[in-house]
Amino acid sequence: MRKLNIAIVGLGNIGSYLFNYLKENKKILTEKNNCLPVVKYVSAKNKSKKRSLRINKNQWLKNYLEATKLNDVDLIIELIGGAEGPAKKLVFNALRNKKHVVTANKALIARYGDELSKIAEKNKVNLEFEASVCGGVPIIRLLKEGLIANKISKIYGIFNGTSNYILSSMDKENKSFNEVLFNAKKLGYAESNPSADLNGDDVSSKLKILSSLCFNSLLNDKIYVEGIKRIEKTDIDNANKLGFKIKLLGYAEKLNNKIYQRVHPTLIKKDSYVAGIDGVLNAVIVDGKPIGQSTIQGEGAGPAATTSALISDISSILRGNIKFPFSLSSMKRKKLKFENINERFFSAYFRFEVLDKPGVLSSITNVFSKNKTSIKRLIQNPNKNKKISSVIIITHDSKDKYLNKILKEISKKNYLKRKPKLIRIDD
Amino acid sequence: MRKLNIAIVGLGNIGSYLFNYLKENKKILTEKNNCLPVVKYVSAKNKSKKRSLRINKNQWLKNYLEATKLNDVDLIIELIGGAEGPAKKLVFNALRNKKHVVTANKALIARYGDELSKIAEKNKVNLEFEASVCGGVPIIRLLKEGLIANKISKIYGIFNGTSNYILSSMDKENKSFNEVLFNAKKLGYAESNPSADLNGDDVSSKLKILSSLCFNSLLNDKIYVEGIKRIEKTDIDNANKLGFKIKLLGYAEKLNNKIYQRVHPTLIKKDSYVAGIDGVLNAVIVDGKPIGQSTIQGEGAGPAATTSALISDISSILRGNIKFPFSLSSMKRKKLKFENINERFFSAYFRFEVLDKPGVLSSITNVFSKNKTSIKRLIQNPNKNKKISSVIIITHDSKDKYLNKILKEISKKNYLKRKPKLIRIDD
Repeated sequence: MRKLNIAIVGLGNIGSYLFNYLKENKKILTEKNNCLPVVKYVSAKNKSKKRSLRINKNQWLKNYLEATKLNDVDLIIELIGGAEGPAKKLVFNALRNKKHVVTANKALIARYGDELSKIAEKNKVNLEFEASVCGGVPIIRLLKEGLIANKISKIYGIFNGTSNYILSSMDKENKSFNEVLFNAKKLGYAESNPSADLNGDDVSSKLKILSSLCFNSLLNDKIYVEGIKRIEKTDIDNANKLGFKIKLLGYAEKLNNKIYQRVHPTLIKKDSYVAGIDGVLNAVIVDGKPIGQSTIQGEGAGPAATTSALISDISSILRGNIKFPFSLSSMKRKKLKFENINERFFSAYFRFEVLDKPGVLSSITNVFSKNKTSIKRLIQNPNKNKKISSVIIITHDSKDKYLNKILKEISKKNYLKRKPKLIRIDD
Repeated sequence: MRKLNIAIVGLGNIGSYLFNYLKENKKILTEKNNCLPVVKYVSAKNKSKKRSLRINKNQWLKNYLEATKLNDVDLIIELIGGAEGPAKKLVFNALRNKKHVVTANKALIARYGDELSKIAEKNKVNLEFEASVCGGVPIIRLLKEGLIANKISKIYGIFNGTSNYILSSMDKENKSFNEVLFNAKKLGYAESNPSADLNGDDVSSKLKILSSLCFNSLLNDKIYVEGIKRIEKTDIDNANKLGFKIKLLGYAEKLNNKIYQRVHPTLIKKDSYVAGIDGVLNAVIVDGKPIGQSTIQGEGAGPAATTSALISDISSILRGNIKFPFSLSSMKRKKLKFENINERFFSAYFRFEVLDKPGVLSSITNVFSKNKTSIKRLIQNPNKNKKISSVIIITHDSKDKYLNKILKEISKKNYLKRKPKLIRIDD
């Protein structure tokens, strides 16, 4: 029987779950993949920390980088995290020393994936990162294998469970952003420092990886990113009244032969599939030819879902064969031009909190018309504080740069009492 | 560059689409899989039929079985169809002569998959059948690879686009079964002889294949199958009023360590995911550990979707490596016991068309109580013909055998004016 020697580097929640999983499921994995996975070594920052793992003394590495040098290591599983520092060092050295690598590190792959895959290909080892995108939803394998026949024109969806939990709880439980965030932390749905989840960076990394796979392109940093931190309960309520939900969506799309990558809160029709995805779930929608639209949904995060993805990568390496990390060889992946969204058309939702006095509406609508943006709907609601009104405007399609100019110009008006809000709409 | 010589046997809609696809996408497939696919031979029942394909004279096989003997054929793509006859002969001979096989033939795999995979394994060739289940939804690859880490407890969903199109059109367009079927044929959503779609046989074959993959079991013929032919517009309307949709669902599930396979029309809550899948789409829901619930949805049939699945199989063979057709080797797959659904509990919807006279309701409810089935809801509606009433009953959970006994006993009553209806409910 063939065997594969594994070193797990990083024994947090995910590493520990994986360690136990591999122990308990050794037999079935061996049978299915015709190769025995052996966890030869582990390494963790804090070796003396209490863990419910049965680790033999001789399994501990003195130094995590040892894994890249030992002859009896075939595969290194990197679960340190972060685009720089030890994770980067480990993965680069591992591939250079002809070790296979499996990683859950989206930041690392989104930043160094091109360089890393070149080394992997040169050294004929595998670099797999299913767990870096959407946890248990095997979207990378789906793009590289199940849907390999298809020319993808668009991929979009909910790629961050924390944000989605917060937005759907604000909607359903009638709570503010901060109340919901507090609960999310208590329930373990948000990390103690959730900034990458809330500012869109997490989705941004995932989207870069996905669009590179979809368009057979090198990774590209041209991406518009906006998180959910400025979404208020009022916006969610307004969206509801207008027939929409607010979701943090990531999009990579080819439109008239131009490629855009964008991450932002989006108003999306209530009866659409994506609007119905609540809580910590992830959902991905792929438009391709000849297949049409495919959709996949599942647990996006957590040790169980991530382990499911890691095991699919490990199994693929157990079965053998060297695959291109990004589906095509680095030499064949194209350096495509990605566009700024400035020139892309969107319809949008605006909210302005203004002094309730004559001339304000005419001033606002004037700014819209000057910026070539026609108004589809305008609703003015008096606030409890009677001197202030909410003006909500839904526009027809207009270029993103005009929408932003409107925002900027009205921000300067002295009748404006709070920072105005712009949320793009998905028709 | 490695190359793989292919023979396509069967040039109907799907074979023709595949032939053109392989011609137009040779370059990208070669680059992604590091191996050149060469369509060396084709064969079709009617060679002289007009096709919009550019086939060279020397590509035509004299006899389809030649493909199994020629040294310059590595892979045979079987697109003949049918569990017996030429398809069976071709695939058995191909595998015996050490040719890889890719097939879209669910009937063949559901009946002979165990024997065929034994031969494939012995001869170290691949037998792939992604296209046999749910067209473009790569559910087989998902189970064998993306979700390989998971112990599946249940798989269910909409596996037949024709039935789903008919049921959702009856619902939305307020038309009878026969009117909708007529339209479906006109639109190409139903074949001229749609009996395998309507009587549940098509779903039955697909489900047998899926449950075998989910439970690591040999194929099993113990399956309850009921199609949609007896669903009337009245039942769909009643379901709507009660908060349900009617869908033809296939289920394979492990419940208290008992495995059941069943295909039948089902009342499912309106706000559930599955209830929202309309038209010719397919949707599959998988419950597994550790992943929880995963869902995948897409085009279930047609040349484009089927070609997408065939190409994923062909690509997997282009990349090399021999895989077990059913994920585990034939020696390791278990001969599990599957249960009859008689003893399984269901709640159910009944409809009785009865003479509107004293004593009828008491007779009906008496039969229910004699058969240990308690009634959750009873609605009596007078018909236009005033002498007849519809009695609709929703039950609490009861054993399937009792539900059927009720049906049988009430069928004999002389106050019953039409064959009664029993539809199981999914809670």
